[in-house]
Amino acid sequence: MITVLSGGTGTPKLIRGLRQILRDCDITVVVNTAEDQWMSGLYVSPDIDTVQYLFSGLLNTDSWWGIRGDSFETFHAMEKLGYTEPLPLGDKDRATCIARAEFLRQGMTLTEATKKIAKVYGVQATILPMSNQEVTSYVQREDKTLMHYQEYWVERRGNVPITGIVRKTADDVQPAATPEVIAAIEESDGIIIGPSNPVTSIGPILECTGVCGALSKKFTIAISPFIGRRPVSGPAAALMQAWGYEPTSYGTWQVYKDVVSMFIQDIRDTEIEVPGAHRLDTMMTNEKKAESLAWDLLSYLPRK
Amino acid sequence: MITVLSGGTGTPKLIRGLRQILRDCDITVVVNTAEDQWMSGLYVSPDIDTVQYLFSGLLNTDSWWGIRGDSFETFHAMEKLGYTEPLPLGDKDRATCIARAEFLRQGMTLTEATKKIAKVYGVQATILPMSNQEVTSYVQREDKTLMHYQEYWVERRGNVPITGIVRKTADDVQPAATPEVIAAIEESDGIIIGPSNPVTSIGPILECTGVCGALSKKFTIAISPFIGRRPVSGPAAALMQAWGYEPTSYGTWQVYKDVVSMFIQDIRDTEIEVPGAHRLDTMMTNEKKAESLAWDLLSYLPRK
Repeated sequence: MITVLSGGTGTPKLIRGLRQILRDCDITVVVNTAEDQWMSGLYVSPDIDTVQYLFSGLLNTDSWWGIRGDSFETFHAMEKLGYTEPLPLGDKDRATCIARAEFLRQGMTLTEATKKIAKVYGVQATILPMSNQEVTSYVQREDKTLMHYQEYWVERRGNVPITGIVRKTADDVQPAATPEVIAAIEESDGIIIGPSNPVTSIGPILECTGVCGALSKKFTIAISPFIGRRPVSGPAAALMQAWGYEPTSYGTWQVYKDVVSMFIQDIRDTEIEVPGAHRLDTMMTNEKKAESLAWDLLSYLPRK
Repeated sequence: MITVLSGGTGTPKLIRGLRQILRDCDITVVVNTAEDQWMSGLYVSPDIDTVQYLFSGLLNTDSWWGIRGDSFETFHAMEKLGYTEPLPLGDKDRATCIARAEFLRQGMTLTEATKKIAKVYGVQATILPMSNQEVTSYVQREDKTLMHYQEYWVERRGNVPITGIVRKTADDVQPAATPEVIAAIEESDGIIIGPSNPVTSIGPILECTGVCGALSKKFTIAISPFIGRRPVSGPAAALMQAWGYEPTSYGTWQVYKDVVSMFIQDIRDTEIEVPGAHRLDTMMTNEKKAESLAWDLLSYLPRK
């Protein structure tokens, strides 16, 4: 059994590779929920949905979000009515978000609601939200005001100067990892921290009480999402700088160094030195390359 | 200019007839909102939507609710996920309810939100919710518990013994008619109370502060929805008895008598005597018959 810490794009690509080698039921994914939001009365959990649609074979792998072939009747009709949702939801994807919101309103935890929904989608893997507490990533702008990360990245395409990263919870209490997350880590043969954004995808998971302690007792491999000073995809560079780290594999290693047993840089990332790092081809430009990377990573894990 | 007081089925049929004679811009409809509800984070206003879809030519006139040809992708996907909404919403219809909820959350009144949405749908008539305050009709069961009217009628098909009708507002304050409703009544050449359910469609409108006073100064015609001891459609009989009235045209007249100038019974309603009532063929089994009834009603209104 292995556990993967995941955000919404880089790591799901790696999971697609892992699925070629492992049975789904031997994979647990601990998913970032700091990009979740209540919107239009429903509960959007972008990273959980990407992961569960991937495992159920429904994921739109052109965009890496949403359901392949979904219609957008409601979204387009709303636009005409003068209300544009911050995230465009397909009609079937919307059903997921409404049902989840309703289960939460009925008193289920996010872990319970996620399990119930994933079961219907036929997911054999275990998908665990990092926490049952609501936590949200904000970017801080130059004028000190906060902007929801989704607004920064999805609506503004990252075209806003930022000076900091702020994580907020409803009650200002640090979110705790769920017992299910801690147990999954403890029972795993190894942990993989995928090549997701360290600031807004992996960082929030590591910040959950209990996670770092559990990880440091296990064999944990982290894959850097950076090549040189640029991430393979997404807005990680500006975010890393706003967070106070160098936007490189070295900066990423600084974030992870207390919990990882092994750190992986891309073979092309030649100008950045990270102490003790291994090098692999991490550019998963197709499914075959993802599988190849997965083989290499699994070969590093200790044998049972 | 005429004003029609309307619920969700009988009166819209009459409005369809009126539209053959009057220009839409000369029709104002004051609509019952006591069947409204927050559901799945959106705001359903069944009677407003039936009326606005009628005027925009979108209404599914087989069921008299929803948009003709609408898809139900979200609803069916949610059912599979284990959440069945109390009311099945089509995907475009859902957009209306989400946009309205969002406008309300942004601080608009229901009157403003209704106007904004109706404009997009190309509605030329004036559609006015009876009040900007939330008010809800409940039926009281034999064990004194309350059940939302929509649950009673849509989910349970009226198969629940009931002993009373209770109207509730958020703050226990009697809802007030909006200034727009009062002005519309005052400026009309005549008012038509359509053949809707007196208990849960017309009653809530009459209970809004200001409505009865305004109506009693105008020429107001009411059409009974009963023939004998049965309504033309819907659950009015059991509701009337629970409300303390005879489930007949006579009982309906008792509810309306202080505000109406003229009371219309169906020509088939021969066994019930209502003092001073006129008789017309009120069975609008097709559009032509609705137009014919509309002609007769308009001929009673005072000429300007």
